[in-house]
Formats: sequence, C-alpha cells, structure tokens
Amino acid sequence: MVKIYALCVHLIYSGIVQRSREELKAIRETNPGLKPTLAIIQVIEEILRLNEDSRVHGIFLHLPQSFLSKSVRNAIKPQKDVMVKVTLVRGNLNIQNFLSCNSSLDAPLVGKMAVLLGLEGPLKVTLQFLLQNNGMMVQTRQWSSKHFDIEISRAQTPKPISQLAQEIGLLPEELEAYGNTKAKVHLSLLNRLQHQPNGKYVLVAGITPTPLGEGKSTVTIGLVQALSAHLKLNSFACLRQPSQGPTFGVKGGAAGGGYAQVIPMEEFNLHLTGDIHAITAANNLVAAAIDARILHEATQSDRALYSRLVPSVNGVRCFSPIQMARLQRLGINKSDPSDLTPEEIRAFVRLDLDPEKVTWQRVVDTNDRFLRKITVGQANTEKGHARQTQFDIAVASEIMAILALTDGLGDMRARLGRMVVGSSRNGQPITADDLGVTGALAVLMKDAIKPTLMQTLEGTPVFVHAGPFANIAHGNSSVLADKLALKLVGEEGYVVTEAGFGADIGMEKFFNIKCRTSGLTPDVVVLVATVRALKMHGGGPNVTAGVPLPKEYINENLQLVADGCSNLKKQIQITHLFGVPVIVALNVFKTDTQAEIDMVCRIAEASGASAAVQCHHWSRGGRGSVELAHAVKKVASQKNHFQFLYNLQDSIVEKIRTIAQKVYGADDIELSPEAQAKIDYYNQQGFSALPICMAKTHLSLSHMPEKKGVPTGFILPIRDIRASIGAGFIYPLVGTMSTMPGLPTRPCFYDIDLDPVTEEIKGLF
Amino acid sequence: MVKIYALCVHLIYSGIVQRSREELKAIRETNPGLKPTLAIIQVIEEILRLNEDSRVHGIFLHLPQSFLSKSVRNAIKPQKDVMVKVTLVRGNLNIQNFLSCNSSLDAPLVGKMAVLLGLEGPLKVTLQFLLQNNGMMVQTRQWSSKHFDIEISRAQTPKPISQLAQEIGLLPEELEAYGNTKAKVHLSLLNRLQHQPNGKYVLVAGITPTPLGEGKSTVTIGLVQALSAHLKLNSFACLRQPSQGPTFGVKGGAAGGGYAQVIPMEEFNLHLTGDIHAITAANNLVAAAIDARILHEATQSDRALYSRLVPSVNGVRCFSPIQMARLQRLGINKSDPSDLTPEEIRAFVRLDLDPEKVTWQRVVDTNDRFLRKITVGQANTEKGHARQTQFDIAVASEIMAILALTDGLGDMRARLGRMVVGSSRNGQPITADDLGVTGALAVLMKDAIKPTLMQTLEGTPVFVHAGPFANIAHGNSSVLADKLALKLVGEEGYVVTEAGFGADIGMEKFFNIKCRTSGLTPDVVVLVATVRALKMHGGGPNVTAGVPLPKEYINENLQLVADGCSNLKKQIQITHLFGVPVIVALNVFKTDTQAEIDMVCRIAEASGASAAVQCHHWSRGGRGSVELAHAVKKVASQKNHFQFLYNLQDSIVEKIRTIAQKVYGADDIELSPEAQAKIDYYNQQGFSALPICMAKTHLSLSHMPEKKGVPTGFILPIRDIRASIGAGFIYPLVGTMSTMPGLPTRPCFYDIDLDPVTEEIKGLF
Repeated sequence: MVKIYALCVHLIYSGIVQRSREELKAIRETNPGLKPTLAIIQVIEEILRLNEDSRVHGIFLHLPQSFLSKSVRNAIKPQKDVMVKVTLVRGNLNIQNFLSCNSSLDAPLVGKMAVLLGLEGPLKVTLQFLLQNNGMMVQTRQWSSKHFDIEISRAQTPKPISQLAQEIGLLPEELEAYGNTKAKVHLSLLNRLQHQPNGKYVLVAGITPTPLGEGKSTVTIGLVQALSAHLKLNSFACLRQPSQGPTFGVKGGAAGGGYAQVIPMEEFNLHLTGDIHAITAANNLVAAAIDARILHEATQSDRALYSRLVPSVNGVRCFSPIQMARLQRLGINKSDPSDLTPEEIRAFVRLDLDPEKVTWQRVVDTNDRFLRKITVGQANTEKGHARQTQFDIAVASEIMAILALTDGLGDMRARLGRMVVGSSRNGQPITADDLGVTGALAVLMKDAIKPTLMQTLEGTPVFVHAGPFANIAHGNSSVLADKLALKLVGEEGYVVTEAGFGADIGMEKFFNIKCRTSGLTPDVVVLVATVRALKMHGGGPNVTAGVPLPKEYINENLQLVADGCSNLKKQIQITHLFGVPVIVALNVFKTDTQAEIDMVCRIAEASGASAAVQCHHWSRGGRGSVELAHAVKKVASQKNHFQFLYNLQDSIVEKIRTIAQKVYGADDIELSPEAQAKIDYYNQQGFSALPICMAKTHLSLSHMPEKKGVPTGFILPIRDIRASIGAGFIYPLVGTMSTMPGLPTRPCFYDIDLDPVTEEIKGLF
Repeated sequence: MVKIYALCVHLIYSGIVQRSREELKAIRETNPGLKPTLAIIQVIEEILRLNEDSRVHGIFLHLPQSFLSKSVRNAIKPQKDVMVKVTLVRGNLNIQNFLSCNSSLDAPLVGKMAVLLGLEGPLKVTLQFLLQNNGMMVQTRQWSSKHFDIEISRAQTPKPISQLAQEIGLLPEELEAYGNTKAKVHLSLLNRLQHQPNGKYVLVAGITPTPLGEGKSTVTIGLVQALSAHLKLNSFACLRQPSQGPTFGVKGGAAGGGYAQVIPMEEFNLHLTGDIHAITAANNLVAAAIDARILHEATQSDRALYSRLVPSVNGVRCFSPIQMARLQRLGINKSDPSDLTPEEIRAFVRLDLDPEKVTWQRVVDTNDRFLRKITVGQANTEKGHARQTQFDIAVASEIMAILALTDGLGDMRARLGRMVVGSSRNGQPITADDLGVTGALAVLMKDAIKPTLMQTLEGTPVFVHAGPFANIAHGNSSVLADKLALKLVGEEGYVVTEAGFGADIGMEKFFNIKCRTSGLTPDVVVLVATVRALKMHGGGPNVTAGVPLPKEYINENLQLVADGCSNLKKQIQITHLFGVPVIVALNVFKTDTQAEIDMVCRIAEASGASAAVQCHHWSRGGRGSVELAHAVKKVASQKNHFQFLYNLQDSIVEKIRTIAQKVYGADDIELSPEAQAKIDYYNQQGFSALPICMAKTHLSLSHMPEKKGVPTGFILPIRDIRASIGAGFIYPLVGTMSTMPGLPTRPCFYDIDLDPVTEEIKGLF
C-alpha cells in the first residue's frame, strides 16, 4: 500500500526578514495586487510556491499574530491542509526571540507524518526544531466532509470510517478501526490539540417526557446534520451507547430514527466496540473477587491467608504494588513481609467484609428479571456461605459512571481503585483496591476508555461513548468524547451532547456533576418539547407504550397545549437557574397543527426562551433542522453566566434540599431513618463533599410519576442514600428504582432476524 | 489515500489459436529456448509482455490443463500476483467451447479490483466475460511474508494486521480490522477460493498431561514459525480463544510462551474481537427468555398470551416468520391468527416448560464460584417462581460449541434454533426456536462467526476462533478457521490446529466430531510429550500447580521415563485407530538430559511413531522446531487411511462403549439409571444418531485422575448423559465436571496493572 505523506512547512517571520529590503520591495512591485507589508507578501509568495508543489500536502503556518491576515489564509489552495500556530512575540522579531517565545511547545507536532522536502535555510532549521522540540497544531479550517444527499442516504452505505476520520482532521495513528463503520479514537488527540480553543458546547435536554420519549436523540442528530451539511459548520454529536438489553426487550434501539439516525444502526445497537462488555467483565470480576475473598477469609487462618497472599516465589517473598498501597492505607510502613507483627498480618489479610453489607452487585447486559433478587453460593464447594444479592443491567454498573466521568487512563485507574464495594464488620469501607483488583480492572477497560466514532445518516461525525443510568447515575455520555469533539470541531464549531430524561434530571446532573467534573461550560441548552407531551401535561389522558394514542393527541386541542406549557416554562426556568440561555426545539409530529405549533413557540419565547423553533428532522433530516441550527449559532455566540446550583461544601442535606426545592419545586425533603444513617456514615467517612445524583422518576417533576405539569405542595421523600465513590457522587433514592428491566410476553426479538445470504438484519429499530 | 489496483489478465487458449499457423511458427523460431507447443509459447510471450507493464499487479491464468506447464508458471515475475484457473475443455478448443465449459464459474472474481488496462481483442473480451459472469481465483504461490528476526522479535511491535493480510492473499474487502493487530476475516473468502485445493492439515495433540500442561500451544506456534519462516512454506496456526476467566484466576493466559507466542498477547487474552462476549449475550438472552416465558405463561390466560404474542398492529394481526415455524412444528397449517381453534391457540402459546427440567444455564466469562448453584426469581415481581439454577463459564455455553462446529451463517442460525433448552411438562423438548429467539441470536453472533486473524512472534498468521470446553464440549477451535486457513495456505501449505487435553479426549473428538462435521481429513498428528509428564506416568510423585517440582522431575531418571512411555505408546496406538500417521514432538525443558531425550525418541519410534523429534521452540522460536517441521512435511505428504472410530448409526450405548474400550482401555461401561433413562429419551426423540462427546477427566486415560500411565481393568461409569442438540452431540458425564472455575486466595489479578502513561500492561502471561 502506498502511503501519502503530509508535508508540513513552517514559515516564520525570521526566515523572511533576513532578506534585504531591496528584495522585498522587488517582490511587492512584481505583485501589485498584494497590499500588506513586505514580510507578509513574502509569506504569501512562499505559500503560492508551495501550492504548486504536489508533494506538499499541508502547510503549517507559524507566525506572529500580526501576520495572520485573511490574505495569508486565503492564499492557501483549498486542497492543502492548513495548520496555524499564532505566537505573540515580545521584543524584536528575530529567530532567537521567536523560538524562545515558543518554549511552551509541548504537543507532538506531526511526528512521523512530516517529511522534509525541498526546504532550505531557516525554514528547514525551524521545522527541524519543531519536530525535535514538539510543536502544536490548531485546526481552524472547515472540514472537507462530503455530506450525503439526504434523498438517497437511506439507501446509501456509510462512508468508510477512515475517510470520515481524515475529513475531520484525525491522524491515521489516532484511529483504531473496528470494521469499516466504527473506530475508536486515541486519547493522545487531547494532547496534540491541547492549545486548540474549544468549539461551542450545546446541550440537548427535554421537558418532562411521556413514556414514549420526546425525541432528544433525533433532535441532537438532526441539529448536527443541519449545522454540518447545511450551515457548513464543523459539528459533532456526542451520544450515549445504548444498553443491549432493551434492544431485544420492549424499547428497541436508540440510534435515533427517520432521517436523523446514527448508521449503521445495528452496529450502534449491538456490541459496538465492546465497551459495555468490558464493563460487564470488570464489574463481575470485582463481584467474584468479593465472594471468593469472603469464603477464603472464613476458611483460613491469618497465617494461611498471609502465606497465600504473599507467597514465596523461588525463595523470595514480596508485596505486590497494590498490596503495598493497602499497607500504607493501614498505616503499616513496612515493605518486608517478614517484618509484620501478627496484628499487622491480621489487619492486612482480613478485609473482614460483612456479607450483609456488600453493596456491589453483579451485572449482565440482558433484560433478565429473574436476576433481580437471587441467592448465590449454594453449591457445596461454597461451604454454606450463601447470601442474597442481585444482578443489575450492565449500564447500571458504577464502572459505567466512571467511564462517563473520567478524563484519562490514570484518573480512571484511580477511580476504579476507590470504588467502595461494601463495608467491614467494623464499618470501614472496603474498596476495589483492597481486593487487589484495580490494575486488572484498568486493563479490562483500557480500550473502552477510547470514544467510538460513527456517523449520521448525512455523513457527519458522531461519538458514541458511555451510557450510565439516568437515575442511579448521571445519565450523560462521556466527558472524554465531549472534550475530543470540542477540539476536533475547532473554535468555530459545535458539539451537541444529550442529557438523559427531562431537564430536571439529566440537565441538572449534566451541569452539577458532568460539567463540574470536566470543567467545561455549556453555551446553550436546546430544550426538546412535543405537542404530545405538552398535551399530557395539560391534562390529556395517559400515554402508554404499545397502546394506540387517545384522540386528544391526534386532533387539535389548543387548551391542552396551553395548559401543558406550564411544564415547558418550568424547565426553561430550571435552565436559567444555571445562567445558560435556552432554545426550545419543538419536535413536530405529523398530527400537530399549525395553531398548536405556533402556540408552543409563542409561549416558549414569552417564558424566557431565547428562541423557539419547529424541527422536522425525522422526515427531512438536517434540512428539517436548519432553523434550529441558525438559532443555536446565534444564541451560542452570546456570552452567558454559567453557575452551579450548589457548592460541594454544602452539607449533603442542603444539597439535596436545594435540588428538591429549586429544581423539582418541592416544599421540602423528608429523610427516612436509613437515609439519615447513611448521611451520618458518609459524613464520618469524608464523602460529604461529593455532588448529588438524584434517583427520581423522569415522568414527573415530582417523585410521583402520575403528577404531570408542574406539581407543587409536595415533600420529596428520600428513602435511602447510596454512594458511588469511584464515580464520585452520592445518590439519594426517591422511591424504588428498578435496575433490571424485564422482557415482555412478546419481546422485540420475535421480529429480529438475519438473512444468512445477504447478511441483512431485519427487525432492529 | 492512493489505492493500488491489481490488474488481472485472463489469457485463454482461444485468443491464441486464432492466430495463423505462420505467425505461431515465427514466434517459435524467434524463441529457440521455448520447447512446448506454439500456443504455450504465445502464452509465455504474453506473460513476458505483462511482466514489464508496471500497471499490471497480477496475472490471472485461465487455461486448459495441458497448458499449465512449469515454464508458463515460471515465466511470471515473482513480483506479480498469480492466480490460476484450470479448465478441462472437452471437444475442440475454441472460445465458445472454452467458455461454455466454464459455466460453473460462480465465485466473484476480483470484482472492483480489476481495472482494464491496455487489453485488446479476445483477451479483453474474456476478461469482461469473467467480470460479468464471475470467475475464480486460486492461490498457488509462496506468500511474500516478511518474517521477523527471532532475535529481536520480543522487542518488536507486531506488523500491521492489514500488511499480514495482504501478504497471505486476503483482499482488502475481506478484512475487518479491530485496531491494528487483529482483524476479522469474511467468510466470503471460502466462496472466492472454493476451487482452491486445500493445504495439508496437521493436528497437534498430546499425551495425558500433568496439571501444568505439556505445551501443545507452544508446539503449535513453534511449528508454524518453523514451517513459515524457516522452511518457507505457507502455514497457518488455528488456535482456540481462551476464556477470560482464567486469565485473572490461576492459570493466566493461553497465548503460548517464550519465543512461541501469539502477539500482542494481551489482546489475545482479553476481549479479542468480542466473540466470547457475543456468546455470553446470546446465551443469556435465551436464559432470560426462558424464565420470563415461564412467568408469563403462569400468570396469563391462553387468550391473553395469544393477544400479546400475536398483537394487532394498526388493526392487522399476523404471525411472525418464527411463529409460523412453530405452528408448522405443531402440525397447525394455518397462517391467519383468527383461524386457530382454542386448542390450537393453547398448543401455540404454551411452551409449558417444566421449571425442573430447564437444562439451559446462564453464563459469565469470570471465574465466579458463587454462581455454581444459585436461586433466581426471588424478587416479588417474579411472584414466587423462584428456582435453582447455575451459571457456567461462558466458554461452556452450547453456543460456543456451535460456533466451533458451524460452517456458515445459515447453518449457525439453524443450529441456534435447534438448541434444546429444556422440556415441557409432557416431555417434549423445547428449543430456542420455540422461544422465538433464533433470529436475535444469529444477529448477536453475526460478527463472532468470522475468525480473527493475529500473528505469531515471528510474524506468521494465526486464526483465533472459538474455544469450547474440552469436556462437556469437544475442545477444538473452529471448523471455519481451519477451512479458511486451508484455502489460504494453498495446496503446498500447512494448517496446524490444536486439540484440547490429551489425545484420548481432544484428538478423539477432533476426529469423530469435528472432522465428521467439517468433512476435512487430517494428514498427520503431532503428539506432544514432555519428560516431566512421562516421569509422572512412570510413577513419579504428584505434580501440582503452584508447588515446586519434586526432585525426580529435575534430575535424570531414566527408569521413570521408560516406564512412563507406556502412556505415550498408548496415545500413539489411539492415533493409529484412526489411520493417521503420528509424529512425537518432545517439548524439551532445560532440566531434561540427553539420555532422557534420546530414550523418549527411541521408544516413540519403536511404538509406531513415524518420527520422534525434540523441540526447542520455547527458547529458540521457529528455529527450535525446524526438525519437527521437516518431519511434518515428510509424513504429511504420505497417503493415509483416515477412518472414524464408530458409525453414527450405532446405538448410543455402542458408541460410548467403543470409545471406552478402544480409546480409554476400559473393560466395559456401566450406565447409571439416569443415564439409561436419558438414552431412552434421546432414542425416542430421534437424537440417537449424534456423535458422542465424552466428559471425562483429562488427567488419566481412565475416569480416575490419579491413575497414570495406562490404567486397565476398569469399568467406565456413565453418571448421566446430556445433549447439545444445536451443536450436534450427546455428552455422557463420567464423574463430576466443574463448569465454573473459582478464584484462588491470591488470583493473578494482584500482579496485573496498566501504566497510565505508556499504556503498557504488566503481569499478564
């Protein structure tokens, strides 16, 4: 295979001013169309020369800021890649001064991709300097993406993922293809583009939904399709990876729909690149380690445990690094296994996990209701250590929440080690690190940490990464995918990410948990509403999955819409609590009338939305979301005043009360005795400064799913409180949360099949 | 990216004989070195012309057999790819006749890769004909592989998998990369190369091993390294994918070791390309469907079940295809849901699974001993339908055995549908098809069916595919990987595949189950022995994992070796039962003395081995196995008389007795009442003509692990009998088989870690 090498040429001022004034003057005279200073003319002259050199695939402009004029940029042939680095040069403009101003260059430039061709003198010297001392690249130009024609895209096969990657400026070595339609992206990109300014950050949230969902995913995809293919702005969608369980259960897949989809949809909905499987493997390794450890401690003396945990290998005994870490936590500052006292040995070998207080559950990515409560350890080999426990669906694993919140391998490894799996008989929290399993978990998750690149139906890029539960966890896609995307789109680009459930839950957690962790600040919120959901909030009959919609939802009913807009108004107000402007996106169904649509938009704007627009992405793809894209572009360019809703240093009770009152509209909260006891325990363990992740129904602003609109006058009951210490949040339980869906009598799988000859998949949606 | 196009030129006789005799005579006179007929001269002339055309990357010879002389083949420049298609032309050699003899051409030729360049007249016509009507390709030449120098390979990074794929003749569209070091290979290759003769088929088996294993995997890898890199013969290793459970438990990984390894070892030992995860997902979907169905049938009327299973969608009710299939099995020949009688509805909606007779187990790819016996369904939502069951390790799933035995998507789908998951209260077997889940299983397994390509430490190709348990299943890698590899190596090449456990189990199942299913016949067996295992069989002390070896195993002891060779001799005799020649490969350890080595080789040859050689692949890589490679080359070229040990039509009891007596050396078998009842049941259900897959300890030829050497005078007890109807075998249980390993007090994971900066993995082995 022939490889095409990109040649990056670095033009610096110093290489130019060394020419004589006479030479420069001559250049100016022979280029009458060029106005600016002589030095700039010479830069342009060099660019024009390089334009004609077919061996040169890209031009790296490294210039003092004053030189980066439009005429310089425009001189570069559209076929060439452009990379720009602006340097503020203090003092005289000479080469030494210029280079010394760049001592902070620390990102790898273009590494292996750079080939020195036809360079002489100072240019060559500086490029070599950059290669040796690292440089940086900034992506400023519009992607060269070939967008699909929406009319034919349904029949169109996705473009090769390597092509998409190239279009958006990924280097070949930053990509790991998984087949031809999906690829993992290396985190090294964050380092390479560390000095690149971020693009605009757009959150898609929703009003309180019906059980059918109101189309946040399709709005997200439609919006990036409109921004990319129609407004010609670089843009990226960041989505959650769906659980495979529901794909075969009731709900079906989560790839969007109509003309706003991620393709190939079956890859998106099935194994993808194995991240959820990796989480399952890591989660269940912890579970197996817990029960095996309880059994081994129960059946062995301290001495036997010690000799097994710290065995003599070829006559040498030593602690492994993870055992040394446990010794340090125990305050035992010894490194020779023969130096420990019997008491120290006992403290070291016995985690003394209380089987009644193991909080870690096994997981499986299948809707298996019979695993909701089980008894394990009933075989004779387990010697009577049976105990009751449960399986959760895989995406409910704390490891999924960690994947979504981590910012790199080191941080992920540390979080995995901090995960509390239960407590000892004397009340000490026991962690994954105590079990010795941290490194193995990191190894199992080493590929899952890389976001997966896919594409929309219109050929625009999508990251699919992480999909934590939106009740017992924070329900947002990964921080890493958002960070990578914000660099890739460039300063003028857009990253559209989605928060699960309604804005009262998903968006609140996006701001207070995800943004707090990532340090990113959102520019605008798109709040998705449907006439259907508004009618429900206005008093319409129940909406149930699998049952035909009552006539109120099919015929015009302006009164129901008007009344239901209370929920929309409240969700707008919630967004404003965080100081972020909000655009209402009305996801239009074919049964909606113009009067209904106009009413929603009017009320939304009257309620403080910066804009309210109708969206037709389902039937028209990106073209159906152009109005939304324009609104997003306009509002995102305005300055906002993002703020968190609470301080981490507030007490756990205060933080919960703030959310309950300000977001949900509760009068107050009420703690069960269990919840109060947990708060005392977390305070004592030093876990009180974590953010709060409410586990509440998404079907009402309150804890009562049947209360639609804007419920008032209620006290929010906190049944229990749990903690995900590795992920880094406390989660109060409001009501009962099912963490394991079931299969219905006729699951989706009845219609799913594969044609063995064409390999075409039927029945996935 | 620039694409290199291969140009395939099709030379046919007819295009040549149209020249006048005078012209041909002139060619002969101007090429005095060419002896054959004028037509052949002209073929060669054309080849020589194409040799000099740099746009032509390969030459497709499509000729009558008589024209395919050595001089024609040798005329082609080594740099050009060669594809040959031989046609037997009946009657006159003219173009119509020639083409009509090729009406069976049905494999895609080179499709998109072919570019017509500089062709005129009949040549162009015929190439176009082939492109339009499909052609076929045969690979006959030596691979252009760049083998790694063994001295530096430990430090060497693997070559890109796309490069390896290209070297061995895979087309780019036949490859699905998963990162840069592993890729799935499309099954379409089998179609493209369907007329290609197979290479030689080599099985690596072993004597009865110690619990430490005797190095079959390393012998396999060392042998292909020797064949490829040293004898310059195309060769492929086909290995089982290891379970991830043991990687973190006691045993560690299974990538081979020393200088005979699959790299990167951590990819091999971890998720690989997700096949085991796919199996887990498919297996557990069946399990969830079973319990949910039992619950739904127990809590709903026939009418309610029917209206849910066959719902009215937009006013229309219809059966799905999988429901139609069930109706047909029930003998109900109706297609309109409203036509069924109440009795027929009842028969259709009620599987009436007996919870006590569910044989399907859940699986997890973790050594989780507490899941060996569990009670599920204890939550209130499951309304008292709790039942006892178990998890097995994922590789024990019947779906893994199916993956290993299937020959394509259609066959896999059919086998998945046939899997029996339990029986109804009136004794009818209930299948995955009855549950409606077949299509979903096939969809979940659509990628897993493609073998994964990796490489050895010396850069030679390896297929990793399927890894069924070697006791309750047949313990061999996949039929599909072997078939693909046999085509890829070409007629002069070698495929080396490995059978689990000792030859009495793994090899017996390889012949009687795997070869019977695949239709492939082996050319030679390599029987791996170690001085260590022979000493154990000769009466040496127990060998236990994790405990230092007793001195008998470290110092020379010729008597123990001589006595222990009884086991070696017996395993040679077992191989001869199948009519296949055997080569003994003594895997030499550094403690073995020359006298011990010589003795084993002498006894082996005296016992009927075609050769007996020592192997040093661990310390020297392929170079250490050159002698073995030469022996394999010599013996594989001899004709053999392969035969099965029993006929499928023999009764179940006869088949079991044949294996027990002829292979294990038992006097007879003894059936428990349970076993006898199962035989009666299987006979009644029509399952009696399946092959037998004995579930017996691998640590002895008998059922008693402590009996070493060649036990005699014993009766083999058959405790119970089970059936994997989808995989297609009956498996008698001899003693208790654990299908879920446990974690030791100090699992491997204590030493496994990941450097967050370099991403280097430590502690996996």
